[in-house]
Amino acid sequence: MAKISNISGFPEWLPQDKRTEDELIAKVKAVYESFGFTPIETPAVELVSTLAAKGVLAQEIFGLHRLQAEPGEREADLALHFDLTVPFARYVAQHYHELDFPFKRYQLQKVWRGDRPQKGRFREFYQFDVDTICRDELPLAADAEVLTVLDTAFSAMAVAPHLLYINSRKVLQGIYQGLGIAPEAHPAVIVAVDKFHKVGAAGVSSELAQIAGVPAESIGTVLKCATICVPAAEIESLPALLAVKGALLDEGLSELKAILQLLPSAVAARIQLDFSLARGLAYYTGLITEVRFPDHPEFGSVGGGGRYDDLTGSFLKAKLPGVGMSIGLTRIMDLVIGKKLLPSTRRSPSQVLVSVYDETQRGQCNACAERLRSSGIAAEVYLTSLKLGKQIEYAERKGIPYVLFIKSDGQMEMKDLRSKEQHLVHDLAAWRPS
Amino acid sequence: MAKISNISGFPEWLPQDKRTEDELIAKVKAVYESFGFTPIETPAVELVSTLAAKGVLAQEIFGLHRLQAEPGEREADLALHFDLTVPFARYVAQHYHELDFPFKRYQLQKVWRGDRPQKGRFREFYQFDVDTICRDELPLAADAEVLTVLDTAFSAMAVAPHLLYINSRKVLQGIYQGLGIAPEAHPAVIVAVDKFHKVGAAGVSSELAQIAGVPAESIGTVLKCATICVPAAEIESLPALLAVKGALLDEGLSELKAILQLLPSAVAARIQLDFSLARGLAYYTGLITEVRFPDHPEFGSVGGGGRYDDLTGSFLKAKLPGVGMSIGLTRIMDLVIGKKLLPSTRRSPSQVLVSVYDETQRGQCNACAERLRSSGIAAEVYLTSLKLGKQIEYAERKGIPYVLFIKSDGQMEMKDLRSKEQHLVHDLAAWRPS
Repeated sequence: MAKISNISGFPEWLPQDKRTEDELIAKVKAVYESFGFTPIETPAVELVSTLAAKGVLAQEIFGLHRLQAEPGEREADLALHFDLTVPFARYVAQHYHELDFPFKRYQLQKVWRGDRPQKGRFREFYQFDVDTICRDELPLAADAEVLTVLDTAFSAMAVAPHLLYINSRKVLQGIYQGLGIAPEAHPAVIVAVDKFHKVGAAGVSSELAQIAGVPAESIGTVLKCATICVPAAEIESLPALLAVKGALLDEGLSELKAILQLLPSAVAARIQLDFSLARGLAYYTGLITEVRFPDHPEFGSVGGGGRYDDLTGSFLKAKLPGVGMSIGLTRIMDLVIGKKLLPSTRRSPSQVLVSVYDETQRGQCNACAERLRSSGIAAEVYLTSLKLGKQIEYAERKGIPYVLFIKSDGQMEMKDLRSKEQHLVHDLAAWRPS
Repeated sequence: MAKISNISGFPEWLPQDKRTEDELIAKVKAVYESFGFTPIETPAVELVSTLAAKGVLAQEIFGLHRLQAEPGEREADLALHFDLTVPFARYVAQHYHELDFPFKRYQLQKVWRGDRPQKGRFREFYQFDVDTICRDELPLAADAEVLTVLDTAFSAMAVAPHLLYINSRKVLQGIYQGLGIAPEAHPAVIVAVDKFHKVGAAGVSSELAQIAGVPAESIGTVLKCATICVPAAEIESLPALLAVKGALLDEGLSELKAILQLLPSAVAARIQLDFSLARGLAYYTGLITEVRFPDHPEFGSVGGGGRYDDLTGSFLKAKLPGVGMSIGLTRIMDLVIGKKLLPSTRRSPSQVLVSVYDETQRGQCNACAERLRSSGIAAEVYLTSLKLGKQIEYAERKGIPYVLFIKSDGQMEMKDLRSKEQHLVHDLAAWRPS
């Protein structure tokens, strides 16, 4: 007998939790579409050269090989995508002449990380991305729109209260410039600062000390800046808090201000200006953002993204700036299940179980179920004519709220398993669950 | 610059076609749920030993390796699933004590075949499965239900008129038994007969001649049986058409008859008894079925499945018979796109483009879009304040049917781009698209 074992990092849910996940997906999809974002899907598989094009091979990648490959067989190197942004860039470049710009797309797919198994690390998980990409110039209205979409999606999911933490790469690089940190050191400084909440000030400090081009006297200020986190309404107080000046910093701050002014006030009220936020990925050039649940701080980021000025640069001559956000759906589901954050979902979509007293009734039972379905009510017919008590137990176990009985005189009775009330039903086509 | 090329066998659709695919998915999902089937999802990745457990390694499998694996690194052998039935069996066995039986599930996921690239062969494609699985005994009502679900799903998709071809492994094996073909030769005979429409009578004949245990004088009758295809209503004529007799054959025929009697008449009217239908997979034990579009015979099967008496046998001691069907969604989409079988879908979900005359209006435009969204109308605000003519062109290119203009006096006008009519809108919250 084949041994069954969980493969570490590849989660799967029980039926009731999968229905919860489907409900969250439907809510986010409705929000994305209500803002005019259109779905696309790319294959799970890309050429290794495509995935490597953005220079992010630090991400660990699963390569593919044919189990029945013949000796010496050579084929294009295939691998599973590790995010949806690189495949999106390839898609836009490949179908460039068939797309309309600004191109607003969303994409819900699994991604894979070829990590070694580690406790608590997913190697397969959903990302739920939304991006706007444009030719030549993309106005800051797009940044504000995508932040609004992200906020609306989290409100629609209603898993836990959320806050949006924002920052700007221009602000960060403006600070580093003002402190005399060499431009070629900026990416490494960003990666170090990004670990602020993980390794603390001392950890970041010792990492910064090892980066060439970082003057020792700048480290204190870099760390001090990373402790700044104020509500959006206090943006005017920032220049005074920062002991640095410079044109790039001013540009970053005025961009953040413009984005905040374009937001509905309810969204702006959930925004924090967080200068410890850096995000590791190389391609961000302006706004960066992360979503967190303040009631579950240990859980870290459950969504995020930012602006990139030239995502398709490695595939296409045209310049295509974009701004995009991603929701970490699998991480959110993990929290929802682990902490029971949402009311549990019924184990079956059925609203009515049509019970079967004996097999001569089955045709009639099928017709009743069909009549319920044509009113949009999910209904199933019990598959045998077991004792009615067993059929009711089945409905209870699956959380099906109603059981229909057809009596020997042809009359129908509907039982509500929650209230235990039972009523005659004269016209099934007119019956509705309460 | 990284070279972009299509990877043969890994299809992806343009935005308008992805929206069509999403509409088909929503229709099938609604049908599956209306019959009480619940969604599950399994990881794309299984242990190779799990995939091999059903003895179907003839299917070519993609194995995974870490691109950054260290020398000598050993980990569990991981591979991409090649269908959804084997992962479903593993899921049921693994979560056996947490599931309620009869367990009715559906599953929509990509599957992968590690074939070498071949024209017209998909290596990544969607399957959309629906199965009922039970402990110990599964009544024929389950077979009839799953056939009804499959028929209803194809009617809901409305891609092309469809027919359901059915047969029974018991009928086939009953015939072979009656003809004196050795039981151990039956699987090979089934695989040969399954190619009837591909290689013709002569091809099957020469293949049968090479199978040990197949008497030469039986081959003519095997081939003659494979030409029988009659409407379900003519089931009573079958015994006379078959020049063979036997208990297993009788059992198979009476099961088919019982299943047909359990079907709504509209479903039974679309059923053909097709004795050339064999299906290659080893695990079928009773009913087998395939869906075809008679207007597109060259396209072959677009769905199918059957009954299996012990799917989880390699993982679990309990006996779990089941019956399931699968819709070949990617093949159907390929046909829909290639032959333009469905009216084209708009390139954007937006119903209204809120135009922006100048940037001072943007806040007001955002508020208008938000009001439309709260009535369930997808609306987007143009991202710049380019000439209004250009904004209208954008809406036309994306197939957005309405454009809203906000005039300098605050009045709003809605233009229908199809009729070119333009009307004042006094109360945006009450406005509805026609």
